[in-house]
Amino acid sequence: MPLSGLIFDVAGIGNAIVDVLCFADEATIVKNELVKGSMTLVDEARADALYKKMGQATECSGGSVANTLAGMASLGSKTAFIGKVKNDQLGSIFIHDLHAVGVHFSTPLMERGPSTASCLVYVTPDAQRTMATYIGACARVSEADIDEQIIEHSAVTYIEGYLWDTPSAKAAIRKAIDLAKKSERKIAFTLSDTFCVDRHRKEFMELIDKDIDILFANEAELKSLYQTQDIESAITELQGICSIAAVTRSERGSVVLTPENREAVATTPVARVVDTTGAGDLYAAGFLFGLTRNWDLKACAALGNSCAGEIIQQLGARSMRPLKDLVA
Amino acid sequence: MPLSGLIFDVAGIGNAIVDVLCFADEATIVKNELVKGSMTLVDEARADALYKKMGQATECSGGSVANTLAGMASLGSKTAFIGKVKNDQLGSIFIHDLHAVGVHFSTPLMERGPSTASCLVYVTPDAQRTMATYIGACARVSEADIDEQIIEHSAVTYIEGYLWDTPSAKAAIRKAIDLAKKSERKIAFTLSDTFCVDRHRKEFMELIDKDIDILFANEAELKSLYQTQDIESAITELQGICSIAAVTRSERGSVVLTPENREAVATTPVARVVDTTGAGDLYAAGFLFGLTRNWDLKACAALGNSCAGEIIQQLGARSMRPLKDLVA
Repeated sequence: MPLSGLIFDVAGIGNAIVDVLCFADEATIVKNELVKGSMTLVDEARADALYKKMGQATECSGGSVANTLAGMASLGSKTAFIGKVKNDQLGSIFIHDLHAVGVHFSTPLMERGPSTASCLVYVTPDAQRTMATYIGACARVSEADIDEQIIEHSAVTYIEGYLWDTPSAKAAIRKAIDLAKKSERKIAFTLSDTFCVDRHRKEFMELIDKDIDILFANEAELKSLYQTQDIESAITELQGICSIAAVTRSERGSVVLTPENREAVATTPVARVVDTTGAGDLYAAGFLFGLTRNWDLKACAALGNSCAGEIIQQLGARSMRPLKDLVA
Repeated sequence: MPLSGLIFDVAGIGNAIVDVLCFADEATIVKNELVKGSMTLVDEARADALYKKMGQATECSGGSVANTLAGMASLGSKTAFIGKVKNDQLGSIFIHDLHAVGVHFSTPLMERGPSTASCLVYVTPDAQRTMATYIGACARVSEADIDEQIIEHSAVTYIEGYLWDTPSAKAAIRKAIDLAKKSERKIAFTLSDTFCVDRHRKEFMELIDKDIDILFANEAELKSLYQTQDIESAITELQGICSIAAVTRSERGSVVLTPENREAVATTPVARVVDTTGAGDLYAAGFLFGLTRNWDLKACAALGNSCAGEIIQQLGARSMRPLKDLVA
């Protein structure tokens, strides 16, 4: 029997990653030749070498879009994730943590080939996170993994910029975008990371111009996109192009843009910031939760701010406590 | 070239476990037929079924004696761990987290057979932890794994009561005890858990009477050992038998017993208790750190109290921050 109507609020396609988090000093970032606050792709050998030198760690499922969907599910949304893990212990952990909060996941596992992806996350004393990602099984996501039924029955399809780093993912994304458009669904996108923007600027520009309905970016990513040091001019450039854009500004909350309007939404300061990993992902969770319930954009941004504020009070990007209480 | 003199402060033999921790309500403990505050052994099928129902989790290396050795290493001790993991992803995590703080580990890995052990840890709103352990590869530790060089060159050999649940471990423990005695080293032991005491009371009694120099127990375990509801009479019974015993009393600190003396050592209350997992293990870490530096017993207990106080402010039994600062 074919499915009918909307089943999911959001379907997400992203890298399926288990995070390995530790506290580290600034010197560790420098010594390991990582870029503070950013994500560096590493091959298996470098990942192994970095892990060997890493201090006491703790493991927690991650992946940008997956974090957003887990957050949305915890808020009460119906979500589905598409991404590639191997049939190994980290893969089991990743799948468990999606299912634990009720995210639908049915992408076939890989039985051989590279391991489930992991991301070494170094949290410095300023609570900033610096990441080294071994992309592993994620690189094998393909067109065949895009379940048409899921995309067609989701109000929004959400994709992450990080996917552009894995060539075979692009055909998958293209297929998902075409399906979403054909079914008259919305497409949301996150710029992911300044260096990721740097690597794929031209394609991201085209994508935002042609296909994206809802864009998530932080100030640094937006400045990178338009190659400017001036956030105001970057915002001005973006405003005409995207029907909805949410620009996150850390402790200063976020700015929501539509072609006609621009609204700054302040956030409540957090008493003790432990780890900023997942702040942007959880912002998107709150925002998309509201948007798929037809909240006004200011309310969407306010819930995004709250979710981001919640996740930075713990280690790791998957909330250890249900988020439902944040929905006022 | 044969080793000479003391190389390690403490050699530990214990179950090599990765903890899978979540926050849960009291009803979850009841529904899962677990014993609040205690450790239940589960087979693989039950572990899988419990994990499937478990909420968002985070992974962190564990194992009682391993936690103690990691804590001691973080304080500045030289320690060595003997225990069995498989050559799988959880095994890699376990080994990494020992090496990350400088614990020596050279027990051969298993290439086939059961997976590395995992322990499902449910942390209830009162911060109490309830555990379900799938013993996996731990059950395969054997006499052959007891490295004579390590035991002979360690001031103290530390063993956990939990080992009595795996039959093949007993021969290993016996060998380690014989080696330690032959080299005139001290032997330390933890009662581990009230139900574990219940399962092995007679053997534990004999062991404490004949072989143990330093005993760790909490009040409930000690009452279970002597099958009494009265902690005073349990303490009186124990006092004559063990040359040093440290009885932990949660927020009331600990009591140190020698045949001649009994001293209560108070602890500083902790502002916010997150998770009591590892409190006893980290108490032992502080105590043994002091003892192997010939501190007086009151100072050993005070550092034990501080380490326990530190670990209960985070999720999981391996401190994410170095413990060195606790050494006054």
